[in-house]
Amino acid sequence: MEFLNDSPGLADVPGFLVAGVSCDVRGLGNGRIDTALIVSETPCSAAATFTTNVVKAAPVRLGLALLAAARPVRGIIANSGNANACTGDQGLADAREMLALAARAAGRGATAEDFFIGQTGRIGRAMPMDRVRAGLPALGPKLGRDPQAGREAASAILTSDTKPKSVTARFTHGGKTFTLAGIAKGAGMIQPNMATMLAFLGTDLAVPRKLLQTLLTEAVGYSFNAITVDGDMSTNDTVILLANGASGVAADSSPELLEKFREALRAVCQELADKIVSDGERVSKIVEVRIEGAATAKEANAVARAIGNSLLVKTSWFGHDPNWGRLMDAAGYAGVAFEEEQVDLFYAPYTHPAPGSFAAPEVSGLVPALIKGKPQDANLPQWKAIAKERRFTIVMNLGMGGASYRLLANDLSTGYVDFNKSE
Amino acid sequence: MEFLNDSPGLADVPGFLVAGVSCDVRGLGNGRIDTALIVSETPCSAAATFTTNVVKAAPVRLGLALLAAARPVRGIIANSGNANACTGDQGLADAREMLALAARAAGRGATAEDFFIGQTGRIGRAMPMDRVRAGLPALGPKLGRDPQAGREAASAILTSDTKPKSVTARFTHGGKTFTLAGIAKGAGMIQPNMATMLAFLGTDLAVPRKLLQTLLTEAVGYSFNAITVDGDMSTNDTVILLANGASGVAADSSPELLEKFREALRAVCQELADKIVSDGERVSKIVEVRIEGAATAKEANAVARAIGNSLLVKTSWFGHDPNWGRLMDAAGYAGVAFEEEQVDLFYAPYTHPAPGSFAAPEVSGLVPALIKGKPQDANLPQWKAIAKERRFTIVMNLGMGGASYRLLANDLSTGYVDFNKSE
Repeated sequence: MEFLNDSPGLADVPGFLVAGVSCDVRGLGNGRIDTALIVSETPCSAAATFTTNVVKAAPVRLGLALLAAARPVRGIIANSGNANACTGDQGLADAREMLALAARAAGRGATAEDFFIGQTGRIGRAMPMDRVRAGLPALGPKLGRDPQAGREAASAILTSDTKPKSVTARFTHGGKTFTLAGIAKGAGMIQPNMATMLAFLGTDLAVPRKLLQTLLTEAVGYSFNAITVDGDMSTNDTVILLANGASGVAADSSPELLEKFREALRAVCQELADKIVSDGERVSKIVEVRIEGAATAKEANAVARAIGNSLLVKTSWFGHDPNWGRLMDAAGYAGVAFEEEQVDLFYAPYTHPAPGSFAAPEVSGLVPALIKGKPQDANLPQWKAIAKERRFTIVMNLGMGGASYRLLANDLSTGYVDFNKSE
Repeated sequence: MEFLNDSPGLADVPGFLVAGVSCDVRGLGNGRIDTALIVSETPCSAAATFTTNVVKAAPVRLGLALLAAARPVRGIIANSGNANACTGDQGLADAREMLALAARAAGRGATAEDFFIGQTGRIGRAMPMDRVRAGLPALGPKLGRDPQAGREAASAILTSDTKPKSVTARFTHGGKTFTLAGIAKGAGMIQPNMATMLAFLGTDLAVPRKLLQTLLTEAVGYSFNAITVDGDMSTNDTVILLANGASGVAADSSPELLEKFREALRAVCQELADKIVSDGERVSKIVEVRIEGAATAKEANAVARAIGNSLLVKTSWFGHDPNWGRLMDAAGYAGVAFEEEQVDLFYAPYTHPAPGSFAAPEVSGLVPALIKGKPQDANLPQWKAIAKERRFTIVMNLGMGGASYRLLANDLSTGYVDFNKSE
């Protein structure tokens, strides 16, 4: 598999056209590109996952309705700078108007009912529709497949991210090459199930809608839902995957091809999720938390999240302090039964999955911190050295069973607090 | 009711003797008072609540066993600087040795089986028993009822607290005066159910053991368990209440007296809990979160905690930013069903309960931020003014039912992160 980081994103996928323009959503008059359009030349099957927050932004409500309609889709309109959340009926009307504007800009026979909408930014402010009406139509003439258009679309959805996030995977089967590409944004309010986190993916394979949803749900579970920045779940989280069939080949036409697509999807989602954690607001550490030996995967997940969201754990990471006492404390309040005397805890250097691979690599260089609950104080200099790295791995074996979970988390820095104290 | 803040604590209660000395638990050689002894001249009935963390420190394990034994108790030995958590069999042996040393220092026929032990500080380090053996016996000759002894005992249990926390309540019935007093420590790892949080209370009323436990459990629910600093639940949280009957009067000898004791207990616990939140690590705001109109008290609690523990909410408080969008977002992921269109949200100036009263006062000066989910933007200058105060109140009415919950929370400051990045 060819696996490109920081690619032109959906501009790489045959049959998709993309563009980004400035509508000055933020009202700063600085020309920042803040609105993206993704259009398929032909109808696509679509799959999506949305925030489970009961407070759902207008774009999420419309997206859920479109998904429920189970109809072909032509594309996605998206903006940053305003989340259009907690904006009531006006927010819904504004989002619908943006769909209509998107359809007009897209042309090619598309209608308002053919589009998803993704929005991210400040909650509780009305969309500046005057500026959107003025700016959005410029997307039409700019639609294209050149790398610059792809990068502008990827930039348009960013908020406090420091850089665009995009990945393209190409894989061959039966002498043909297929493409899957995606763009994403993250930075704050990131503990998915989703987080304000937007991710838009496209492929030129044809994939039946239900199968596409199954594959996306699986991939999201291992990627966007397996990261945490601040434990805050957003009102706007959205992942959309469009399959336009421009290759003329159906993914389920052969089990091997289907498996290649599934692998590519997981690898792309995991790499995009990794980029989100790495680019969390004022992050200085990325910590892979591997919980093993749990009774159930759900319990492994709960322990991993208790650790990854603990303020005291996160601040100790910021301080390069391998404070395993705080890890044990956090594990202990996860609501999971285990015995301290059965717990093994290790620090290890981080190993990144091979490009295009979704499998978590074997951890090597494990340094024990606790064995059966007993501190291995002699290893302190080694833990300290590992915890000084920008990335490292923690393996906690609960000794209760065979289930495991892997969570990517990061530290909590003074910079994060400073950054978020106002918006 | 006479209600004294920053009192001499248990030194105010007839029949109790207290002392604090330095055992140099931290090994810094600075003479800091770090070990306290509380002794009743006569056997007490005892009630206690402990952390629900599955990782329980040695002192908590011994305390649970003593509580289960349902026998009379003579006192409490406590230290700061070392939590004696994750210390295995050695930790249990060390804690038991401290009980024996405490009994010897207490004299008056006390035995090791008569004492609770409370410990707080670093997790995962063996107790420096050589220094404890050398220092602890000095508690015996210092035991007394003078205010200085009381203050030294209150100081001994502090870790990152900036000041000792003590309250004394005196109330009269049938011409007699009764006393209830308590000391507490908090600062970090504070989201009880318990938190490292120690609180020791004593009264000169006689109270049957089961009744005492019922009353303490109720009071803890409204106080120590209704605060959050950082959402981290400690391995060591302990609240102990001793009733020595030195007044010669039983609390259940009259319904009126029992009610007075119950009120005093709730008022003392709430005031100590308030001091813990106010003195949280590097706190700049104390925010009273009142959730009303919930379907159940449990759901009100869940929404309050989602708000009070949200990093994005807490950082916005640090920035004096009345960011109600983050409040709505946090409420939305609390796992509680509600409709955004039914939510009323208000900011209001904070009103402290009257001294000795446990009842939350009526909130006045409510400024609407949302009415039935609609932003009341015209009120922005008023919210901003309220959110600039060191204390303020948020009232969120979910419009689902009649249940409510009140949580005291605080902000997350750059100072907190700096302070906790290493230990």
